[in-house]
Amino acid sequence: MTGNEIHDVPEYFAPDEQSIGLVVTQTWTPDLPPEGFPLEGGRRLPSITLAYETYGKLNEARDNAILIVHALSGDAHVAGIHSPTDRKAGWWDVMVGPGKSYDTDKYFVICSNILGGCKGSIGPSSINPETGEPYGLDFPMVTIGDMVRAQRLLVDYLGIERLLAITGGSMGGFQALEWAVRFPDRVASVHAIATAARLSTQAIAFDEVGRQAIMADPDWAGGNYYGKSTPKAGLAIARMIGHITYLSDEQMHAKFGRRLQDRETFSYDFKTDFQVESYLKYQGDAFVHRFDANSYLYISKAMDYFDLANGCGSLIEAFEGVQAEFLVVSFTSDWLFPTYQSKEMVRALQANGVPTTFLEIPSTYGHDSFLLPNERLANAVTDFLAHVQQHVRQGHPGRPVSGREVRA
Amino acid sequence: MTGNEIHDVPEYFAPDEQSIGLVVTQTWTPDLPPEGFPLEGGRRLPSITLAYETYGKLNEARDNAILIVHALSGDAHVAGIHSPTDRKAGWWDVMVGPGKSYDTDKYFVICSNILGGCKGSIGPSSINPETGEPYGLDFPMVTIGDMVRAQRLLVDYLGIERLLAITGGSMGGFQALEWAVRFPDRVASVHAIATAARLSTQAIAFDEVGRQAIMADPDWAGGNYYGKSTPKAGLAIARMIGHITYLSDEQMHAKFGRRLQDRETFSYDFKTDFQVESYLKYQGDAFVHRFDANSYLYISKAMDYFDLANGCGSLIEAFEGVQAEFLVVSFTSDWLFPTYQSKEMVRALQANGVPTTFLEIPSTYGHDSFLLPNERLANAVTDFLAHVQQHVRQGHPGRPVSGREVRA
Repeated sequence: MTGNEIHDVPEYFAPDEQSIGLVVTQTWTPDLPPEGFPLEGGRRLPSITLAYETYGKLNEARDNAILIVHALSGDAHVAGIHSPTDRKAGWWDVMVGPGKSYDTDKYFVICSNILGGCKGSIGPSSINPETGEPYGLDFPMVTIGDMVRAQRLLVDYLGIERLLAITGGSMGGFQALEWAVRFPDRVASVHAIATAARLSTQAIAFDEVGRQAIMADPDWAGGNYYGKSTPKAGLAIARMIGHITYLSDEQMHAKFGRRLQDRETFSYDFKTDFQVESYLKYQGDAFVHRFDANSYLYISKAMDYFDLANGCGSLIEAFEGVQAEFLVVSFTSDWLFPTYQSKEMVRALQANGVPTTFLEIPSTYGHDSFLLPNERLANAVTDFLAHVQQHVRQGHPGRPVSGREVRA
Repeated sequence: MTGNEIHDVPEYFAPDEQSIGLVVTQTWTPDLPPEGFPLEGGRRLPSITLAYETYGKLNEARDNAILIVHALSGDAHVAGIHSPTDRKAGWWDVMVGPGKSYDTDKYFVICSNILGGCKGSIGPSSINPETGEPYGLDFPMVTIGDMVRAQRLLVDYLGIERLLAITGGSMGGFQALEWAVRFPDRVASVHAIATAARLSTQAIAFDEVGRQAIMADPDWAGGNYYGKSTPKAGLAIARMIGHITYLSDEQMHAKFGRRLQDRETFSYDFKTDFQVESYLKYQGDAFVHRFDANSYLYISKAMDYFDLANGCGSLIEAFEGVQAEFLVVSFTSDWLFPTYQSKEMVRALQANGVPTTFLEIPSTYGHDSFLLPNERLANAVTDFLAHVQQHVRQGHPGRPVSGREVRA
């Protein structure tokens, strides 16, 4: 491995022969009631816009729709390419496309950029209609529940009564879980991948340090940096911290070890010595060109706030009204969302009699495992989806809802 | 636990009944040859000063001296108090004092602040005699080997031919290992605690992000901030990152969980919500008042550069000339210096026939375990020291040195 090759590790993969090809991102602005879109934090957005992509066709029975929800830095562009010259495909092209696990020849696949994001959906970089300027920190805090409620409007708009599946990794998993609990009759199955019912304390700690790095950057300017110099240094540091948590000690050792970057001996100064330093800086620098620092603040906070058991007493009680079947997948080397958290979920689901398939996949790639080609993940999803579709078409009634009122 | 109590967790412990009591830090500036003190990075320091403390008495045989070497943010003040009103004792008061494992009634204990530090030894905040101003980034890079060579001058000055033990945790362990390899006839035993023969790639990555945070702070000003505003925000972020790596996921969960800090509900802004955030900010803010940001850069870089196998081909070859006996201790929840790294050392020592005692201590406190009261660690050190002292007094010859030339 030469020094430069380590930078060619694609964040997303090149489109392959089974790629869905050219796709477009659409945006949708729903007609809202006069009060706008109320948020769990107590404030309201006068209007919202969601960016989304769809692939495949909704069948006549409208029972083949799958909603894919993305992680912190993701977007609506989950598969295919936007232009014939794109070198990289959507962020989960390995899983979504003709003949793939989320088979666009069979299923109608939807992916929407989250509320608070910076990839077409409304977020802190959007224009505040009251001022004509970007919201910045005037943007109200949004929660995972708010993201999911906005997605439900989109699913309504697309004419889908019940999703065959909602699938998400990492923070996408938070949204998938929230859907199943909040709108139990709208979801036939949940694929919760490399995720948890809440962040660990350690993960909250890392998020907070990333936010502190952004807010300590003078260019952040209290969030009012649009049209000026953006807080690149702070956001890059936040991203570097994140990246370490997405990999594993084992994988970093295998990938970089103690190899030096473009040099034979130590610099004996504070320039780049090790390949791992160069890799992290590259990742940090690349990120600041494609992501908004304020969105990073809002979304990471939404992750920290998320706890499926909030207001329910326990995770077992949280899952009480669930009608979906569950596929829960963790990866052995994922220390950001460790397997013990998946097992907690599985136990709570099983305590409610929820049909649950759990799979811990051996992998050295850490949390990033779910984004990489993985035959066991691909097969598990393919099989699970076929099985759920069969249940749905057999008029499988779903689990009887308990008498407990579900959250709406 | 109320919100405020979490801030009272002492970094060092209050002096107990067995504390050695009042101690003083001394400084020593050796007479150097005209060429000064040459460094491994190729540059020289015209003069050096070391801060150190000693407790107990050197016996007539001069065979009861123990050198304690400290970790990144430590200092020479390893035990006792500096003033009758001190609320906290030295950083390893739990292990050093009358009747303790490093028993100052029996042993002559020395601890010296490292080269490059900011606690009395020469470092980047010291005055550069050529300019009359603080060195800043004109301070030459120092290595673990340089630190150890300076300590050897001090040990010579104190009239000690052979140390009964050199003991260190974390980066202190790096120095202890280096001593045993570089000056094999000067060390009867090594206590390598929560350490390794090199940093993991992941640990280098965390160090680099910490350095980037410091250097991204405009107040850092290329290292020329002395007498002006210091890079508090950057150093605090580096410290927060460090702190997460010193604890364990399990311990953070037990200590903080998802408890909120001085509030009943979420803030829905970017102020402090969780106790773990408050704790980290407190640790970061406290650190900037007691530590120099440039020293943090230099010392963390010295850690990254350290690899006992550098220039030796392998760890087994690195240990070839060693004459000391070894006590190697790791802690189960330490993910910064995981047990697998201790085991690598132990295997390489055993391959050389070095008498080695290895102990993995169950603990939930992560890397910080070595600084906390731990009966198993205390007993292991007490027993091992008694055993080594017996060997030394029986005229135990040490291991025969192999034909290979040792590093000098």
